[in-house]
Amino acid sequence: MAGNTFGKLFKLTTFGESHGEALGGIIDGCPAGIQLDFDAIQHEMQRRKPGQSSIVTQRKEADEVQFLSGIFEGKTTGTPIGFIIPNTNQKSDDYSHIKDSYRPSHADYVYEKKYGIRDYRGGGRSSARETASRVVGGAVAKQLIPEIKINAFVSSVGELFVSKPYQDLDFSLIESNPVRCPDLDTAKKMEAYIKEVKKQGDTVGGTVTCVIQNVPIGLGEPVFDKLHAALGQAMLSINAVKGFEYGSGFCGAKMKGSDHNDLYNADGTTKSNLSGGIQGGISNGMDIYFRVAFKPVATLIQKQEVLTNTGELIEQQGKGRHDPCVVPRAVPIVEAMAALVLADYFLFSKINI
Amino acid sequence: MAGNTFGKLFKLTTFGESHGEALGGIIDGCPAGIQLDFDAIQHEMQRRKPGQSSIVTQRKEADEVQFLSGIFEGKTTGTPIGFIIPNTNQKSDDYSHIKDSYRPSHADYVYEKKYGIRDYRGGGRSSARETASRVVGGAVAKQLIPEIKINAFVSSVGELFVSKPYQDLDFSLIESNPVRCPDLDTAKKMEAYIKEVKKQGDTVGGTVTCVIQNVPIGLGEPVFDKLHAALGQAMLSINAVKGFEYGSGFCGAKMKGSDHNDLYNADGTTKSNLSGGIQGGISNGMDIYFRVAFKPVATLIQKQEVLTNTGELIEQQGKGRHDPCVVPRAVPIVEAMAALVLADYFLFSKINI
Amino acid sequence: MAGNTFGKLFKLTTFGESHGEALGGIIDGCPAGIQLDFDAIQHEMQRRKPGQSSIVTQRKEADEVQFLSGIFEGKTTGTPIGFIIPNTNQKSDDYSHIKDSYRPSHADYVYEKKYGIRDYRGGGRSSARETASRVVGGAVAKQLIPEIKINAFVSSVGELFVSKPYQDLDFSLIESNPVRCPDLDTAKKMEAYIKEVKKQGDTVGGTVTCVIQNVPIGLGEPVFDKLHAALGQAMLSINAVKGFEYGSGFCGAKMKGSDHNDLYNADGTTKSNLSGGIQGGISNGMDIYFRVAFKPVATLIQKQEVLTNTGELIEQQGKGRHDPCVVPRAVPIVEAMAALVLADYFLFSKINI
Amino acid sequence: MAGNTFGKLFKLTTFGESHGEALGGIIDGCPAGIQLDFDAIQHEMQRRKPGQSSIVTQRKEADEVQFLSGIFEGKTTGTPIGFIIPNTNQKSDDYSHIKDSYRPSHADYVYEKKYGIRDYRGGGRSSARETASRVVGGAVAKQLIPEIKINAFVSSVGELFVSKPYQDLDFSLIESNPVRCPDLDTAKKMEAYIKEVKKQGDTVGGTVTCVIQNVPIGLGEPVFDKLHAALGQAMLSINAVKGFEYGSGFCGAKMKGSDHNDLYNADGTTKSNLSGGIQGGISNGMDIYFRVAFKPVATLIQKQEVLTNTGELIEQQGKGRHDPCVVPRAVPIVEAMAALVLADYFLFSKINI
Repeated sequence: MAGNTFGKLFKLTTFGESHGEALGGIIDGCPAGIQLDFDAIQHEMQRRKPGQSSIVTQRKEADEVQFLSGIFEGKTTGTPIGFIIPNTNQKSDDYSHIKDSYRPSHADYVYEKKYGIRDYRGGGRSSARETASRVVGGAVAKQLIPEIKINAFVSSVGELFVSKPYQDLDFSLIESNPVRCPDLDTAKKMEAYIKEVKKQGDTVGGTVTCVIQNVPIGLGEPVFDKLHAALGQAMLSINAVKGFEYGSGFCGAKMKGSDHNDLYNADGTTKSNLSGGIQGGISNGMDIYFRVAFKPVATLIQKQEVLTNTGELIEQQGKGRHDPCVVPRAVPIVEAMAALVLADYFLFSKINI
Repeated sequence: MAGNTFGKLFKLTTFGESHGEALGGIIDGCPAGIQLDFDAIQHEMQRRKPGQSSIVTQRKEADEVQFLSGIFEGKTTGTPIGFIIPNTNQKSDDYSHIKDSYRPSHADYVYEKKYGIRDYRGGGRSSARETASRVVGGAVAKQLIPEIKINAFVSSVGELFVSKPYQDLDFSLIESNPVRCPDLDTAKKMEAYIKEVKKQGDTVGGTVTCVIQNVPIGLGEPVFDKLHAALGQAMLSINAVKGFEYGSGFCGAKMKGSDHNDLYNADGTTKSNLSGGIQGGISNGMDIYFRVAFKPVATLIQKQEVLTNTGELIEQQGKGRHDPCVVPRAVPIVEAMAALVLADYFLFSKINI
Repeated sequence: MAGNTFGKLFKLTTFGESHGEALGGIIDGCPAGIQLDFDAIQHEMQRRKPGQSSIVTQRKEADEVQFLSGIFEGKTTGTPIGFIIPNTNQKSDDYSHIKDSYRPSHADYVYEKKYGIRDYRGGGRSSARETASRVVGGAVAKQLIPEIKINAFVSSVGELFVSKPYQDLDFSLIESNPVRCPDLDTAKKMEAYIKEVKKQGDTVGGTVTCVIQNVPIGLGEPVFDKLHAALGQAMLSINAVKGFEYGSGFCGAKMKGSDHNDLYNADGTTKSNLSGGIQGGISNGMDIYFRVAFKPVATLIQKQEVLTNTGELIEQQGKGRHDPCVVPRAVPIVEAMAALVLADYFLFSKINI
Repeated sequence: MAGNTFGKLFKLTTFGESHGEALGGIIDGCPAGIQLDFDAIQHEMQRRKPGQSSIVTQRKEADEVQFLSGIFEGKTTGTPIGFIIPNTNQKSDDYSHIKDSYRPSHADYVYEKKYGIRDYRGGGRSSARETASRVVGGAVAKQLIPEIKINAFVSSVGELFVSKPYQDLDFSLIESNPVRCPDLDTAKKMEAYIKEVKKQGDTVGGTVTCVIQNVPIGLGEPVFDKLHAALGQAMLSINAVKGFEYGSGFCGAKMKGSDHNDLYNADGTTKSNLSGGIQGGISNGMDIYFRVAFKPVATLIQKQEVLTNTGELIEQQGKGRHDPCVVPRAVPIVEAMAALVLADYFLFSKINI
């Protein structure tokens, strides 16, 4: 362990700190013969990239992925796919002010205590910059399972939320606005709200909903590796995530069985789908949908009390270029992690007598 | 995979179907020299056991665990601990009515489609009876980390919920009532409500809250194996679970950063604990707390439409002895899974230079 | 780890000590729908069993395997197969003489030092009795890959060896003699020699050769999990094994490339097979063959100096019923481990786009 | 799987093809706080590098390793260590002649059959160039366990072998000659012989012996992950390896127990060490020693028959710059793999109550 590998058959191992020379990773277990669409991969990187709109961090990173192995004449060869994403914006001096202090609700303190040493520049390994490697892995995973459709979108920002069921939304509108919310009225309100929060030097949380369609029946491995348990772990491993629910989720806990059970149609589909496309940990062919809660970004552009490594509490003025709200940029990350899970379980499903 | 192993260093592998000869498992990786308290293990089994009160299933199972290896003169030897729990109540004939049909919101259909064969008796491997083995594993895990205190309790049943913060509850009252809710007024209401639901032949969902105290700083392995991601996977792998949130959870997604950040005290503890005891995937020494949502049990003692394996929809009268509400018996299971996660990460934390 | 699991997709986890209540294991990852031949499984157990001839240990063990899960109406269900083999011959008192002493070339001393505690009865977990569980796993694995033929035989005992190439041997004669050597003249000499050694209260080493035929092209996972590397680990994990070579083996290290290269036939087979059926870690469809070296059994029925746990060297008279030569009973164990490796890689080979 | 990760706690995952842009890898699980000696790492690279003497391949590669993460101010941080080794000598055109043909005793054919596609340039992933990444991993591993001394040397080339026991050799002479044989008379003969073989356009096999000293008692995880089983797998995973034996090895299979048993001294050391420093899979504190057999390099600078992908057998003139004998350059690779195994098991040994 040490925890930098995700997946069991389709495996992504990542490395890299926020302000090191490069991030990167190795995808091991990708089957041979997939004609990779590199534009699609880079497109996912653009969606996650800083600086893409006025409501996300204005930091500048090219975020260009370079593939070093595992691909020959455009196709995967079955050997490990090594890749790097050079860090082009390594302004280490920006971070001298946090060298000796621990910011509240950041990982500074626990890294120092656990490892006795930390790369304090921009959060080091604990920075969400690490998710760039996940997006690469997820973009390759999506190409292994092209028939499965994965769409994530922002479903709430602060108290503002999309009230329509996902079935009434047009996913093609997700990328039409910087919030990545397909309900355009709500999107506008969210955008205005994020700008207001940003002006205050504050941040705000939100949720991302993800819908996975066209999933074959039979993905998932009981009992510990249930499909939704793997999705949950995947989402909870993303920076700032505080909760995960699928299907009826926490609402389901309030319901009676007679209301909650999904009755069958004669073809094996179900009339309702409170189950969220998964029964007993195994996909049943209905849409999988889940919701992920993100806390507000901990870095504020305000004065805040921090703890120094000598045990003092001092006021520190936050600075730099940070996201006032993380969910718009989290959308492609949620999709990437979902794709990694599904690719992994897709490979497992091929092991039958 | 195939998914029957949990943990990476402290590993539990389980086997067994609801109506087979026995359930059981192997605990591999348990350090040597632990003087096992077998009464404590059996006590956990009693807490999970069917038939313990009028609001849970009246099925009868002795649920006595027999250890077969890995223990010598009462102490663990460092070798794998094999154990079995004989099934004493194998009334297979009870289940002939579901041999050829798929009950709504059960795993019958997906097991059949995935494996082409299923042990239909009582749900087979998909039955929550499988969690008996988890309770054994968790009870041993607890004894590896005796200083860490794990307390779970029922925090809601249907629309009834405990409104006090956990700090205002007396955990010693959890076992004082059949609901396992330490808020006695609410417990009474919950009990009455479950009885009413049972009378209707219906079922109801609920939530379990778990509080883990006295956790050392430094448990957790970034980036994919964050402590809360492992807890989330563990909980989501329990039958009927639909959601997991820790710390501020889904509420945190509505908050601003200036309200959500946990400011430090000079000793490294924090004034608030919206983080839920974990930063960047690593325990920070504060209480870890999380909430788990359980859907209502799918088996109703009512008429319900089921799908036959010839594609017909027929009405079927549910029968048997089922839990009207799963959460009281889920409490020890949540604790067991939490103990397995913590024991695993405790062992990881010992790997330092 | 802790090392009691073998395989990555077709996984066997074992437990049990020589003189505990039972040995057993869990086979996880076995595909569903295999009609198990239980007689064939028990037959493999008989081949490994003590007391089967005058040249092996006269200990008495029924070695009957009981399956507890994962099988329904005679077929595998895709869920974990739990099994136990009760120990019927637990004469613990036999071993009081070794409670406080460490026998030379046994694991007594290192277990004590590593774990601080050991089940001294009959070697506990370090006893070759543990391999009974491997034979169960291997017997199931064989049924997953029925087209692949695995034949092991004794190729040397002490200085006596089979001089014919395996192609000139009739594998159907292997079980015709207690040594399990298909070269009947040599078998007779070996049997006589083992009896002589036994009379002296001594033991002798030997080698087992294994030939695997009808292997499909493409089993093996470069670079660390080469097929022969997995076979090597599997064999070296068997008690008393000191060496492993495949194809030309150590002889190949003396050769020139112009003599060693296997030239192709037009159909992709090769004219010679010094490669031993594996190129670059991947099976090429030719016979796989390898040789495994077993040291002489360390337990002698002679006086020997042992070390006590108080640091004294004392003479001790070996007693009990031990194998004078381990290789006849090792034959089914070698086959079992080979079957486990091939079943595992067979499952891996199914993961293609 | 897919097989590109080695180790369970100290884990090396590698990527890269012979003629791709770069090789590289990720070391995950390296504890924090190790002050890395980069010169020592580069020194190991120099030992493995092509072109270092007249008896190895004259190919030119800088083989400079670039670390991209996991290190801060010269120390490991506990986060994954990513590294790359750029390929500076990518003359792809050299290999056009093998694009459509399969060389005897190479992996060309099986890669094509397994994956349906192969990077034919220089053997692609099956090239021994991949071992450069192992040497980086091993060099870091050595620094985790500085007290353990690992010395490998060439013990035979063709029929020429070192007849002295390793205890009579001066390991400081290993690097004094291009063969890496500390027995200088034999080294000279070996060097002359390799030159002669090279002149013929032929190649020759050999063996490497490795001695590991100062190993603490207690490394190794029974039963499947015995220390020597892991060493065996590690060595057999190196290109061209055909056999592995430790301690008495294949000779031990000819011996009697009364000659083979290692009697104790009062301090727990043993008078002889035919066991090779390992009992029951666990180190006993005595020297670990083993021998690895390498076949002759398959690439000859002679005419040889090859198989084309249209099923024809044609003569092809081998060309390029290849090793006439692989063992001198294999020495640092054997050490690297040994170091990876020991570092992994060293970390395991820290998990005690």
